Amino acid sequence: MKRAGCALCETEGGLAVFRADKFRVIRAEESGFPAFYRLIWNDHVAEFSDLSAADRLLCMEAVTLIETVLRRQLQPTKVNLATLGNVVPHLHWHVIARFDWDSHFPAPVWGAALRPDDEAALARVRRQLPVLDGDIQAALATMPAAL
Amino acid sequence: MKRAGCALCETEGGLAVFRADKFRVIRAEESGFPAFYRLIWNDHVAEFSDLSAADRLLCMEAVTLIETVLRRQLQPTKVNLATLGNVVPHLHWHVIARFDWDSHFPAPVWGAALRPDDEAALARVRRQLPVLDGDIQAALATMPAAL
Repeated sequence: MKRAGCALCETEGGLAVFRADKFRVIRAEESGFPAFYRLIWNDHVAEFSDLSAADRLLCMEAVTLIETVLRRQLQPTKVNLATLGNVVPHLHWHVIARFDWDSHFPAPVWGAALRPDDEAALARVRRQLPVLDGDIQAALATMPAAL
Repeated sequence: MKRAGCALCETEGGLAVFRADKFRVIRAEESGFPAFYRLIWNDHVAEFSDLSAADRLLCMEAVTLIETVLRRQLQPTKVNLATLGNVVPHLHWHVIARFDWDSHFPAPVWGAALRPDDEAALARVRRQLPVLDGDIQAALATMPAAL
Protein backbone atom coordinates (compact mmCIF):
# COMPACT_ATOMS: atom_id res chain seq x y z
CA MET A 1 0.00 0.00 0.00
CA LYS A 2 1.22 3.45 -0.87
CA ARG A 3 0.26 6.75 0.66
CA ALA A 4 -0.10 9.88 -1.48
CA GLY A 5 2.34 12.56 -0.47
CA CYS A 6 4.76 10.18 1.31
CA ALA A 7 8.31 10.72 0.05
CA LEU A 8 9.22 7.05 0.54
CA CYS A 9 6.08 5.85 -1.28
CA GLU A 10 6.64 8.15 -4.21
CA THR A 11 10.43 7.94 -4.64
CA GLU A 12 13.10 5.28 -4.28
CA GLY A 13 14.63 7.27 -1.42
CA GLY A 14 18.27 7.04 -2.47
CA LEU A 15 20.71 5.15 -4.63
CA ALA A 16 19.18 1.71 -5.24
CA VAL A 17 21.30 -1.17 -3.89
CA PHE A 18 18.84 -4.04 -3.52
CA ARG A 19 15.13 -4.57 -4.06
CA ALA A 20 13.08 -7.36 -2.53
CA ASP A 21 9.35 -7.89 -2.52
CA LYS A 22 8.88 -6.37 0.94
CA PHE A 23 11.77 -3.95 1.28
CA ARG A 24 14.50 -2.17 -0.58
CA VAL A 25 17.97 -1.03 0.44
CA ILE A 26 19.37 2.26 -0.71
CA ARG A 27 22.63 4.03 -0.09
CA ALA A 28 21.96 7.46 1.32
CA GLU A 29 24.08 10.25 0.01
CA GLU A 30 24.72 12.04 3.29
CA SER A 31 27.72 14.31 3.23
CA GLY A 32 30.35 13.14 5.69
CA PHE A 33 28.87 9.62 6.07
CA PRO A 34 29.54 7.67 2.89
CA ALA A 35 28.74 4.24 4.34
CA PHE A 36 25.15 5.13 5.24
CA TYR A 37 22.52 2.65 4.05
CA ARG A 38 18.78 2.58 4.59
CA LEU A 39 16.45 -0.37 4.54
CA ILE A 40 13.05 1.00 3.48
CA TRP A 41 9.92 -1.10 3.94
CA ASN A 42 8.00 -1.05 0.66
CA ASP A 43 4.50 -0.83 2.14
CA HIS A 44 3.57 2.34 3.93
CA VAL A 45 3.72 1.44 7.62
CA ALA A 46 4.83 3.88 10.29
CA GLU A 47 6.10 1.82 13.20
CA PHE A 48 8.25 -1.30 13.51
CA SER A 49 5.47 -2.91 15.57
CA ASP A 50 3.10 -2.47 12.63
CA LEU A 51 4.94 -5.36 10.96
CA SER A 52 4.00 -8.98 11.56
CA ALA A 53 6.42 -11.07 13.60
CA ALA A 54 7.65 -12.75 10.40
CA ASP A 55 8.22 -9.39 8.74
CA ARG A 56 10.02 -8.00 11.80
CA LEU A 57 12.37 -10.98 11.66
CA LEU A 58 12.94 -10.52 7.92
CA CYS A 59 13.58 -6.80 8.42
CA MET A 60 16.10 -7.19 11.22
CA GLU A 61 17.91 -10.10 9.60
CA ALA A 62 18.35 -7.89 6.53
CA VAL A 63 19.59 -5.02 8.72
CA THR A 64 22.00 -7.47 10.37
CA LEU A 65 23.36 -8.59 7.00
CA ILE A 66 24.03 -4.98 6.04
CA GLU A 67 25.74 -4.36 9.38
CA THR A 68 27.84 -7.48 8.92
CA VAL A 69 29.09 -6.31 5.52
CA LEU A 70 29.96 -2.89 6.91
CA ARG A 71 31.90 -4.46 9.77
CA ARG A 72 33.77 -6.90 7.54
CA GLN A 73 34.72 -4.41 4.86
CA LEU A 74 35.27 -1.24 6.87
CA GLN A 75 36.02 -2.23 10.48
CA PRO A 76 34.10 0.83 11.68
CA THR A 77 34.50 2.11 15.21
CA LYS A 78 30.76 1.43 15.68
CA VAL A 79 27.66 0.70 13.67
CA ASN A 80 24.58 2.80 14.39
CA LEU A 81 21.09 1.39 13.76
CA ALA A 82 17.98 3.52 14.08
CA THR A 83 14.40 3.85 12.96
CA LEU A 84 13.11 7.31 13.78
CA GLY A 85 10.71 8.46 11.06
CA ASN A 86 9.68 11.67 12.77
CA VAL A 87 9.92 13.59 9.49
CA VAL A 88 8.91 10.77 7.11
CA PRO A 89 6.75 8.32 9.09
CA HIS A 90 7.30 5.42 6.68
CA LEU A 91 9.31 2.59 8.20
CA HIS A 92 13.00 2.82 7.34
CA TRP A 93 16.11 1.70 9.17
CA HIS A 94 19.32 3.68 9.12
CA VAL A 95 22.46 1.51 9.08
CA ILE A 96 25.50 3.73 9.45
CA ALA A 97 29.21 2.91 9.75
CA ARG A 98 30.74 5.33 12.24
CA PHE A 99 34.42 6.11 12.64
CA ASP A 100 36.28 7.82 15.44
CA TRP A 101 37.50 10.35 12.88
CA ASP A 102 34.08 11.24 11.46
CA SER A 103 32.69 14.75 11.86
CA HIS A 104 30.22 13.83 14.63
CA PHE A 105 31.74 10.88 16.51
CA PRO A 106 30.82 9.93 19.24
CA ALA A 107 27.65 12.02 18.84
CA PRO A 108 24.84 10.77 16.63
CA VAL A 109 24.99 11.81 12.98
CA TRP A 110 21.90 14.03 13.34
CA GLY A 111 23.38 16.70 15.61
CA ALA A 112 26.01 19.34 15.13
CA ALA A 113 29.47 18.43 13.80
CA LEU A 114 32.24 18.22 16.37
CA ARG A 115 35.08 18.62 13.86
CA PRO A 116 35.66 19.20 10.14
CA ASP A 117 35.41 16.33 7.68
CA ASP A 118 38.61 14.30 7.23
CA GLU A 119 38.63 14.34 3.45
CA ALA A 120 41.39 11.77 3.05
CA ALA A 121 39.65 9.30 5.34
CA LEU A 122 36.30 9.91 3.63
CA ALA A 123 37.90 9.29 0.24
CA ARG A 124 39.23 5.93 1.45
CA VAL A 125 35.72 4.88 2.47
CA ARG A 126 34.18 6.20 -0.75
CA ARG A 127 36.58 4.07 -2.79
CA GLN A 128 35.15 0.98 -1.08
CA LEU A 129 31.50 1.81 -1.84
CA PRO A 130 31.22 -0.24 -5.05
CA VAL A 131 32.49 -3.31 -3.19
CA LEU A 132 30.22 -2.57 -0.24
CA ASP A 133 27.16 -2.18 -2.46
CA GLY A 134 27.97 -5.45 -4.23
CA ASP A 135 28.56 -7.35 -1.00
CA ILE A 136 25.28 -6.06 0.44
CA GLN A 137 23.43 -7.15 -2.71
CA ALA A 138 25.04 -10.58 -2.52
CA ALA A 139 24.33 -10.98 1.20
CA LEU A 140 20.67 -9.99 0.87
CA ALA A 141 20.21 -12.25 -2.15
CA THR A 142 20.93 -15.21 0.14
CA MET A 143 17.77 -14.49 2.18
CA PRO A 144 15.08 -16.77 0.73
CA ALA A 145 12.21 -14.87 2.33
CA ALA A 146 13.40 -11.60 0.85
CA LEU A 147 13.09 -12.69 -2.75
CA MET B 1 30.70 -11.57 30.45
CA LYS B 2 31.43 -8.19 31.98
CA ARG B 3 34.07 -5.70 30.97
CA ALA B 4 35.91 -3.63 33.57
CA GLY B 5 35.29 0.05 33.13
CA CYS B 6 32.08 -0.38 31.11
CA ALA B 7 29.30 1.74 32.61
CA LEU B 8 26.62 -0.77 31.55
CA CYS B 9 28.56 -3.73 32.98
CA GLU B 10 29.16 -1.98 36.28
CA THR B 11 25.82 -0.24 36.85
CA GLU B 12 22.16 -1.00 36.18
CA GLY B 13 22.06 1.94 33.79
CA GLY B 14 18.80 3.51 34.95
CA LEU B 15 15.63 2.84 36.88
CA ALA B 16 15.09 -0.93 36.84
CA VAL B 17 11.84 -1.98 35.14
CA PHE B 18 12.43 -5.61 34.18
CA ARG B 19 15.25 -8.12 34.44
CA ALA B 20 15.59 -11.26 32.35
CA ASP B 21 18.46 -13.68 32.08
CA LYS B 22 19.83 -12.07 28.91
CA PHE B 23 18.70 -8.47 29.11
CA ARG B 24 17.23 -5.85 31.38
CA VAL B 25 14.95 -2.91 30.73
CA ILE B 26 15.43 0.38 32.48
CA ARG B 27 13.63 3.68 32.31
CA ALA B 28 16.08 6.41 31.47
CA GLU B 29 15.67 9.63 33.32
CA GLU B 30 16.25 12.00 30.42
CA SER B 31 14.90 15.48 31.00
CA GLY B 32 12.17 16.29 28.50
CA PHE B 33 11.58 12.66 27.48
CA PRO B 34 9.83 10.85 30.32
CA ALA B 35 8.78 7.82 28.26
CA PHE B 36 12.32 6.80 27.37
CA TYR B 37 13.20 3.16 28.01
CA ARG B 38 16.37 1.22 27.29
CA LEU B 39 16.79 -2.49 26.72
CA ILE B 40 20.33 -3.30 27.84
CA TRP B 41 21.90 -6.63 26.90
CA ASN B 42 23.41 -8.14 30.04
CA ASP B 43 26.55 -9.56 28.44
CA HIS B 44 29.09 -7.10 27.16
CA VAL B 45 28.67 -7.16 23.39
CA ALA B 46 29.15 -4.10 21.22
CA GLU B 47 27.13 -4.67 18.07
CA PHE B 48 23.68 -6.09 17.35
CA SER B 49 25.28 -8.54 14.93
CA ASP B 50 27.38 -9.93 17.78
CA LEU B 51 24.21 -11.63 19.03
CA SER B 52 23.14 -15.05 17.80
CA ALA B 53 20.08 -15.17 15.54
CA ALA B 54 17.98 -16.44 18.47
CA ASP B 55 19.19 -13.62 20.70
CA ARG B 56 18.55 -11.01 18.00
CA LEU B 57 14.99 -12.27 17.75
CA LEU B 58 14.56 -12.20 21.53
CA CYS B 59 16.01 -8.70 21.69
CA MET B 60 13.79 -7.22 18.99
CA GLU B 61 10.65 -8.96 20.19
CA ALA B 62 11.29 -7.41 23.60
CA VAL B 63 11.87 -4.01 21.98
CA THR B 64 8.60 -4.50 20.07
CA LEU B 65 6.69 -5.27 23.26
CA ILE B 66 7.99 -2.06 24.85
CA GLU B 67 7.02 -0.10 21.74
CA THR B 68 3.57 -1.67 21.78
CA VAL B 69 2.96 -0.60 25.39
CA LEU B 70 4.11 2.95 24.63
CA ARG B 71 1.77 3.14 21.64
CA ARG B 72 -1.21 1.72 23.51
CA GLN B 73 -0.84 3.85 26.63
CA LEU B 74 0.46 7.12 25.19
CA GLN B 75 -0.52 7.29 21.50
CA PRO B 76 2.79 9.02 20.75
CA THR B 77 3.28 10.88 17.50
CA LYS B 78 6.12 8.42 16.75
CA VAL B 79 8.27 5.84 18.46
CA ASN B 80 12.03 6.09 17.94
CA LEU B 81 14.21 2.97 18.17
CA ALA B 82 17.99 3.15 18.06
CA THR B 83 21.14 1.35 19.04
CA LEU B 84 24.10 3.69 18.74
CA GLY B 85 26.63 2.93 21.50
CA ASN B 86 29.27 5.35 20.32
CA VAL B 87 29.91 6.53 23.87
CA VAL B 88 29.16 3.26 25.69
CA PRO B 89 29.80 0.41 23.23
CA HIS B 90 27.69 -2.11 25.15
CA LEU B 91 24.57 -3.16 23.27
CA HIS B 92 21.51 -1.16 24.35
CA TRP B 93 18.37 -0.16 22.49
CA HIS B 94 16.69 3.17 23.04
CA VAL B 95 12.88 3.01 22.85
CA ILE B 96 11.49 6.52 23.01
CA ALA B 97 7.94 7.85 22.75
CA ARG B 98 8.03 11.09 20.78
CA PHE B 99 5.34 13.75 20.68
CA ASP B 100 4.80 16.62 18.30
CA TRP B 101 4.96 18.96 21.32
CA ASP B 102 8.28 17.64 22.68
CA SER B 103 11.33 19.90 22.80
CA HIS B 104 13.07 18.30 19.82
CA PHE B 105 10.33 16.95 17.54
CA PRO B 106 10.72 16.13 14.66
CA ALA B 107 14.49 16.14 15.23
CA PRO B 108 16.12 13.23 17.07
CA VAL B 109 16.37 13.57 20.85
CA TRP B 110 20.16 13.86 20.70
CA GLY B 111 20.42 17.23 18.97
CA ALA B 112 19.56 20.74 20.03
CA ALA B 113 16.10 21.59 21.34
CA LEU B 114 13.75 23.29 18.92
CA ARG B 115 11.43 24.72 21.60
CA PRO B 116 11.07 24.89 25.38
CA ASP B 117 9.65 21.96 27.33
CA ASP B 118 5.86 21.87 27.57
CA GLU B 119 5.68 21.29 31.31
CA ALA B 120 1.96 20.55 31.41
CA ALA B 121 2.22 17.95 28.66
CA LEU B 122 5.32 16.41 30.29
CA ALA B 123 3.47 16.18 33.60
CA ARG B 124 0.64 14.29 31.91
CA VAL B 125 3.11 11.72 30.55
CA ARG B 126 4.95 11.46 33.88
CA ARG B 127 1.69 10.62 35.65
CA GLN B 128 1.36 7.58 33.38
CA LEU B 129 4.84 6.21 34.09
CA PRO B 130 3.85 3.82 36.90
CA VAL B 131 1.24 2.25 34.62
CA LEU B 132 3.71 2.15 31.72
CA ASP B 133 6.40 0.50 33.83
CA GLY B 134 3.90 -2.08 35.06
CA ASP B 135 2.56 -2.82 31.60
CA ILE B 136 6.09 -3.24 30.25
CA GLN B 137 6.93 -5.65 33.07
CA ALA B 138 3.76 -7.63 32.40
CA ALA B 139 4.33 -7.72 28.63
CA LEU B 140 7.95 -8.88 28.94
CA ALA B 141 7.01 -11.50 31.52
CA THR B 142 4.93 -13.21 28.80
CA MET B 143 8.09 -13.94 26.76
CA PRO B 144 9.10 -17.51 27.67
CA ALA B 145 12.59 -17.15 26.26
CA ALA B 146 13.24 -14.07 28.35
CA LEU B 147 12.76 -15.75 31.69
